[in-house]
Amino acid sequence: MERIERHACFGGQQEVWKHASTSLGCEMRLGVYLPPQATQRRLPVLYWLSGLTCNEQNFITKAGAQRYAAEHGVILVAPDTSPRGPGIADADGYDLGQGAGFYVDATQAPWASHFRMHDYVTRELPALVEAHFRTTDARAISGHSMGGHGALVAALRNPGRYRSVSAFSPIVAPTQVPWGQKAFSAYLGDDHEAWKAWDAHELVAGASERLPLLVDQGEADEFLVTQLRPLLLQDACDAAGHPLELRMRPGYDHSYYFIATFIGEHIAHHARALVD
Amino acid sequence: MERIERHACFGGQQEVWKHASTSLGCEMRLGVYLPPQATQRRLPVLYWLSGLTCNEQNFITKAGAQRYAAEHGVILVAPDTSPRGPGIADADGYDLGQGAGFYVDATQAPWASHFRMHDYVTRELPALVEAHFRTTDARAISGHSMGGHGALVAALRNPGRYRSVSAFSPIVAPTQVPWGQKAFSAYLGDDHEAWKAWDAHELVAGASERLPLLVDQGEADEFLVTQLRPLLLQDACDAAGHPLELRMRPGYDHSYYFIATFIGEHIAHHARALVD
Repeated sequence: MERIERHACFGGQQEVWKHASTSLGCEMRLGVYLPPQATQRRLPVLYWLSGLTCNEQNFITKAGAQRYAAEHGVILVAPDTSPRGPGIADADGYDLGQGAGFYVDATQAPWASHFRMHDYVTRELPALVEAHFRTTDARAISGHSMGGHGALVAALRNPGRYRSVSAFSPIVAPTQVPWGQKAFSAYLGDDHEAWKAWDAHELVAGASERLPLLVDQGEADEFLVTQLRPLLLQDACDAAGHPLELRMRPGYDHSYYFIATFIGEHIAHHARALVD
Repeated sequence: MERIERHACFGGQQEVWKHASTSLGCEMRLGVYLPPQATQRRLPVLYWLSGLTCNEQNFITKAGAQRYAAEHGVILVAPDTSPRGPGIADADGYDLGQGAGFYVDATQAPWASHFRMHDYVTRELPALVEAHFRTTDARAISGHSMGGHGALVAALRNPGRYRSVSAFSPIVAPTQVPWGQKAFSAYLGDDHEAWKAWDAHELVAGASERLPLLVDQGEADEFLVTQLRPLLLQDACDAAGHPLELRMRPGYDHSYYFIATFIGEHIAHHARALVD
């Protein structure tokens, strides 16, 4: 772990680190916000998964989350969205390859050797963070769009690993929408049955843990009908008896202006679950 | 005036507009945040001047100011930092030409025909904003680095125009530091006496209005000693009996993480002066 940025922010430190990832076989960067309480005691960690085209910078520069993390005493960890670099497979288009890891573990060539973002985010990254920073073992996870999908799937596939989960504008049913179908075809191949293990609206039926899902979705989101389709998650949760709070927000779009407006409510939600 | 972006944000609207500027002879863009109260009544306006290399996007995406503007009922207007375009003079380097207007009215070729950012910011822009949006006639001005210089100079040169002024990490003495000397040589020529009319630490002695100056400055700012030198303003204000609150902030650097941390205090300061 090597620190490459450090900026005082709301009484704490916004840092950027890089490390050699074994899951991904490349160097990875992550944003780490250490609130002022981090100098005094061990703190819980909220992991944030960003969306398509993003790297570790988008959330830390645009969401304004540090204020709330400082208020509640929560560490924020925001990794990059895929493996990157000259030796890593890539594709034309913003929605596949570098910057578009989709938080799955790829099984197909040429992706399988590096595109293991689920393993990275749920296993390697927490182990790294918990070894390197003074944390408790309480974890929460959230994200936006592709990262909202990643957060929901991470929580649903790993019972007991997270105390709380939330998402902004998530791709709740990647098997049913163009972004997900393109990515899953490439990363997971043609067996559509195998895709279901990476789709939140398919996973709720079999979830062994009834961790409540908190989702905020803008009603003016340009991807609402074509890519996000939150009512598929609502229907699946209703059918499975899985707790979901889906908050439709009139007028809000897919941008960080939406995230900035409601990230304080999400961090308060996670803090209630994280802080004993 | 044509609106080119509109995003719901903290109950209001973050917009970006473009218009043909007569001061600058080119198309200009500006960010306008209309807080939720803007649909109910006329509101005062806080003008924000950004620093070197910035355009109208930096402040609106990174400062997190909308939350506080919504709390206090203040419109935020953030223009680009210079004229721009293929027909506009430019120079190598980030600190002269496009993106580096320095908020002066240039007198020298090839700059004089377009680089009139002081006239634009203090005269054309407020007239445009006050004609187009439902504003009161109460104005405040603030900015960062080159824009902090611009805000201080705008207020000191135009008594009665602003109810309050503040700055983050301002270039308080451009005649004394490399950034200012390079820009003023190009824009204003070799007559160093003429430079003083664009230097806050020179202007306080002759200020006919004792408008209090609020300045926040990070102590870990990488430009503190070479380019910013806030104690030159402190000394000038002490000598002139001009009110200054200079707040040195241990650990903070020159970045938007610093601005985001304290912009709420600045907006509260301006709101006290702006809201009757």
